[in-house]
Amino acid sequence: MLFMVEMTVNAPHDVDKDAFEALKASEKVRAEVLQRAGKWRHLWRVAGRYANVSIFDVADAGELHDTMMSLPLYPFMDVRVTALCRHPSAIDAD
Amino acid sequence: MLFMVEMTVNAPHDVDKDAFEALKASEKVRAEVLQRAGKWRHLWRVAGRYANVSIFDVADAGELHDTMMSLPLYPFMDVRVTALCRHPSAIDAD
Amino acid sequence: MLFMVEMTVNAPHDVDKDAFEALKASEKVRAEVLQRAGKWRHLWRVAGRYANVSIFDVADAGELHDTMMSLPLYPFMDVRVTALCRHPSAIDAD
Amino acid sequence: MLFMVEMTVNAPHDVDKDAFEALKASEKVRAEVLQRAGKWRHLWRVAGRYANVSIFDVADAGELHDTMMSLPLYPFMDVRVTALCRHPSAIDAD
Amino acid sequence: MLFMVEMTVNAPHDVDKDAFEALKASEKVRAEVLQRAGKWRHLWRVAGRYANVSIFDVADAGELHDTMMSLPLYPFMDVRVTALCRHPSAIDAD
Amino acid sequence: MLFMVEMTVNAPHDVDKDAFEALKASEKVRAEVLQRAGKWRHLWRVAGRYANVSIFDVADAGELHDTMMSLPLYPFMDVRVTALCRHPSAIDAD
Amino acid sequence: MLFMVEMTVNAPHDVDKDAFEALKASEKVRAEVLQRAGKWRHLWRVAGRYANVSIFDVADAGELHDTMMSLPLYPFMDVRVTALCRHPSAIDAD
Amino acid sequence: MLFMVEMTVNAPHDVDKDAFEALKASEKVRAEVLQRAGKWRHLWRVAGRYANVSIFDVADAGELHDTMMSLPLYPFMDVRVTALCRHPSAIDAD
Amino acid sequence: MLFMVEMTVNAPHDVDKDAFEALKASEKVRAEVLQRAGKWRHLWRVAGRYANVSIFDVADAGELHDTMMSLPLYPFMDVRVTALCRHPSAIDAD
Amino acid sequence: MLFMVEMTVNAPHDVDKDAFEALKASEKVRAEVLQRAGKWRHLWRVAGRYANVSIFDVADAGELHDTMMSLPLYPFMDVRVTALCRHPSAIDAD
Repeated sequence: MLFMVEMTVNAPHDVDKDAFEALKASEKVRAEVLQRAGKWRHLWRVAGRYANVSIFDVADAGELHDTMMSLPLYPFMDVRVTALCRHPSAIDAD
Repeated sequence: MLFMVEMTVNAPHDVDKDAFEALKASEKVRAEVLQRAGKWRHLWRVAGRYANVSIFDVADAGELHDTMMSLPLYPFMDVRVTALCRHPSAIDAD
Repeated sequence: MLFMVEMTVNAPHDVDKDAFEALKASEKVRAEVLQRAGKWRHLWRVAGRYANVSIFDVADAGELHDTMMSLPLYPFMDVRVTALCRHPSAIDAD
Repeated sequence: MLFMVEMTVNAPHDVDKDAFEALKASEKVRAEVLQRAGKWRHLWRVAGRYANVSIFDVADAGELHDTMMSLPLYPFMDVRVTALCRHPSAIDAD
Repeated sequence: MLFMVEMTVNAPHDVDKDAFEALKASEKVRAEVLQRAGKWRHLWRVAGRYANVSIFDVADAGELHDTMMSLPLYPFMDVRVTALCRHPSAIDAD
Repeated sequence: MLFMVEMTVNAPHDVDKDAFEALKASEKVRAEVLQRAGKWRHLWRVAGRYANVSIFDVADAGELHDTMMSLPLYPFMDVRVTALCRHPSAIDAD
Repeated sequence: MLFMVEMTVNAPHDVDKDAFEALKASEKVRAEVLQRAGKWRHLWRVAGRYANVSIFDVADAGELHDTMMSLPLYPFMDVRVTALCRHPSAIDAD
Repeated sequence: MLFMVEMTVNAPHDVDKDAFEALKASEKVRAEVLQRAGKWRHLWRVAGRYANVSIFDVADAGELHDTMMSLPLYPFMDVRVTALCRHPSAIDAD
Repeated sequence: MLFMVEMTVNAPHDVDKDAFEALKASEKVRAEVLQRAGKWRHLWRVAGRYANVSIFDVADAGELHDTMMSLPLYPFMDVRVTALCRHPSAIDAD
Repeated sequence: MLFMVEMTVNAPHDVDKDAFEALKASEKVRAEVLQRAGKWRHLWRVAGRYANVSIFDVADAGELHDTMMSLPLYPFMDVRVTALCRHPSAIDAD
C-alpha cells in the first residue's frame, strides 16, 4: 500500500551540532536501506527547504508507522501523511 | 524538472451533469496522453477524496503551467504546486 | 486496515429539497449495509453539527476510496481521512 | 457519554530522556487501567505520527477532564476534543 | 451538562427575503422557548457580527444535538461546539 | 459591559515547578476575588484542556485589560477576546 | 469606547449591478453621517483591496453592533472586531 | 514606492464565458499600458495556477489602490499586498 | 503615507526580567518621541492582550521599516503591516 | 528559471549575539556574490518585518536548493518557495 509522507526537519538552534550530524548520517544510511528494500519508493527534496516528499510502499499503516519511527531524525520532523490508492486514469500500477 | 502537484476537484452541485461527465472523459484521455509522453510521471488517487497527488517531469515551470492549463477539469481544481529536486539520500535519479 | 474519516455535510441552500431528502434516505440504507458488512465499524454523530466521525475497516486504501465514492451524499461532503494502526498501549486488537 | 480526543505528543528535544521514558511507561499503565475500566473505549495510533485517536466513554465532561488531567504525558500533548452522540444511521448503540 | 456553542449566521445574498425573515421570527420563538425551559442558559450577541455565543445546559451531547437541529436557522449557521465543565476556581456551580 | 475571554495556559516544560504552582495558587485567589466583585461573571473549564471560557462584566475595555493583566498566570496564556452585547432574542439582561 | 473594525466587501459576481451601486451610494451617505456624529472616528482604505480599517467611538458594544447593522453593505461584509483601550505609552487620549 | 501584489483569479463556473473572455482581453491591454508606463514593473505567472506575482512601482498606496481598481478582472481576484522597501544587501536600487 | 501596524509582544518565560523591563522603559521613551514627531499617529492597546494597533504616518515604506527596527522591543514582536490610503467616503484627510 | 522566495528570519532571543552578527555579515557578502552572478535577481525588504521577497534566476530547482542551503542565515529562516514562469501579458522576458 502506498503512502505519501511529507517531512520537514526542524533543527533547534541550540541542538548539539555533532550529535545532530551523527543523526543525519544514520538517517542517510537508514533511508538507503529502506529504498533498497523497496519500502521507500520515492524520495524527493523540496526545493529550497529542509524537507522532502516521499512515497512509501508498505504492507499497511502499521508498517508505515514502524518505518517512520525507525528514522533517526523523526524526533525533529513535522510529518503529514496521505494514504494513496490507484487512480483510474493511471496507465500503470505504480 | 520535477514538480509535485496536488489537485482537488470541486464539482459544483448545480453543474450540468452531462457536460461535467464529458469533461471527466476528456480529462482521462489527456492524462493518458501526458503519461505516455513521460510528462505526467506519477498519478495517485488520494484515498477517500476526489483528489490526486501527481509528479510531473517537464522542461521547466513554463511547460508545467501549459500542461496544467491543458487539463479539461482545471477550472474546477484547487491546485498546490511544489518544486522538487534530487534528494542527497536518494539512491536513483528519479 | 482502519481509517478514521470525518465527514461534514454541506447542503446548499438552493438544493432541491426532495432530491436531497431522497439522497439522505439512500445514504442511510448504504450506511447500514456497510455497517452490517463490517466495513463501517463505528459511526458517531458530532454533537451540534451535521457531521460524523467514522471508523472504517477495509482491506486497503483502494477499498476505502471505493466505499467513500459509493456514498450518495459524498458530493456534498468535506472529508478528512486519517490512517490508523494498532497502538502499543491498546489492550485489544480493535 | 462519548468523546473523541485526538492527542499529539510533543517531546521537546532538550527534555530529560530518562524522565520522559518513565512518563511514557506510567502513561502506558494508566492507559491500560482506563481501558479495563471501560472509560477509554478505543485507542488507535495515527500512522506515521506520535499521536493517537481515542474514544472515551465517561459520565460527563467533568469526568473526561479529570481523566485527561490524570495522564502522565498530558503536559506534552496538544489535544482536540469532540463531543459525540448517537448517529441516526448507526445500527448499534456504540 | 454545559456546552458553549458559537453560531455564525450566513444569509446567502440570493435567499428569498420573506422566507428568511419568517425563519428568523421562528428562530426567535424557538430561542425563547429553550431559554424558558432552562436549556439555553445564556445567549449573547457578538458585537458587530451576525453571530452569537451561547451556553446550553442539557442532559448530554445527544440532547445538545437535537436542540441545535431544532433551530430554524441551523441550515445557515457555522457552528463551533466546546464541552465545558466545572472550573476548580469557580465559586458557584454555574 | 460583557466580554468573552478564552484563555489557554501553556506551561513550558522547563518552567520551575514550585514557582509555577505558586502562580497557580495566587491565580486561584485572584479569580475568586474577581468573581466575588462581580467582574468575572462566569468561569468554565474547557473539558480535556488546560483552558477556560470566561465572561467578564466590566465598565469598559480598559477595565478588562487591567483585569487580565492582574492575573498571575497571564504571561503563560494565549488569549482570545470577544466583545458581547445583548441579543435581541435573549429573555433576560444577562 | 473604541473598536477597530476591519471590513472586507465581497460583491457576488451575479449580484444585480444597479441594486449594488444603490447600496454603495447609501453606504457612503451613512458613513458620512456616522463620521460627522463622531461615531466613526477614522476610516481608511486598505490599499489594493475592497476593504477598510475603521475606528469607532461608541458608548459600548451594543451601540457598535447597532451601528454595524445599520450599514447598507453589511450583508456583503466579512467583519473582524477588536476592542481597544488606552495604551500606557500613548501621549494623548485618542 | 514598491508593492508586491499576488493576484489569484477565480472564474465562477457559471460566469458568462464571452463576457469573461472580453474582460481577460481588456485586462491584457490594461496590463500592457501599465507596464509601458513603468507602474507595473514585473509580472510573473505562478506556475500551474491562474495567479500572478507582480511588482508595482507607484507614488504611494493611493496610486496602488487606484491602479488595482482599474483592472478589469479585479472583481474576480483574491489579492495579497505587501509593501516593499530597499534591502540593505541589495546591490542596486531596484 | 499611512500604515496600520499590529504588534504582539511575546516575552519568553525565561527572559532576563530586569533586561526586559529596561527594554520596555526605552520602548516607552521611543514611542513618545515618535508620537511627538508625528510619525506614530495613533497607538491603541488591544484590550486583554499584550498587543497594540498603531497607525504610522511616514514618508514611505523605507521610513516605516527604519522606524520599526528602531523599536527596542522589536525582536520580541509579531508584526502585521497593512498599507492604507484615503477612503472615498472619509470626510477628512486623516 | 525563476523562483520567488519569501524568507522570514527568526532570531531566537537567547542566540549568541556576536555569532549571529557574524552570520548576518557573511549573509550580506553571500547575497552580494549571488546578485553579481545574476542568480539572485531581485532582493526587497518587506517593510516593517525582518523578512524579504526575492527572485532567483537559476538553472533549475536543484540549483535553487543549493543556493538556499548556502545562505549563512538559512537555519533561522522560514521559507516559502513559488515557481514562476512567463506571464502572457508581460511585455518583456524578465
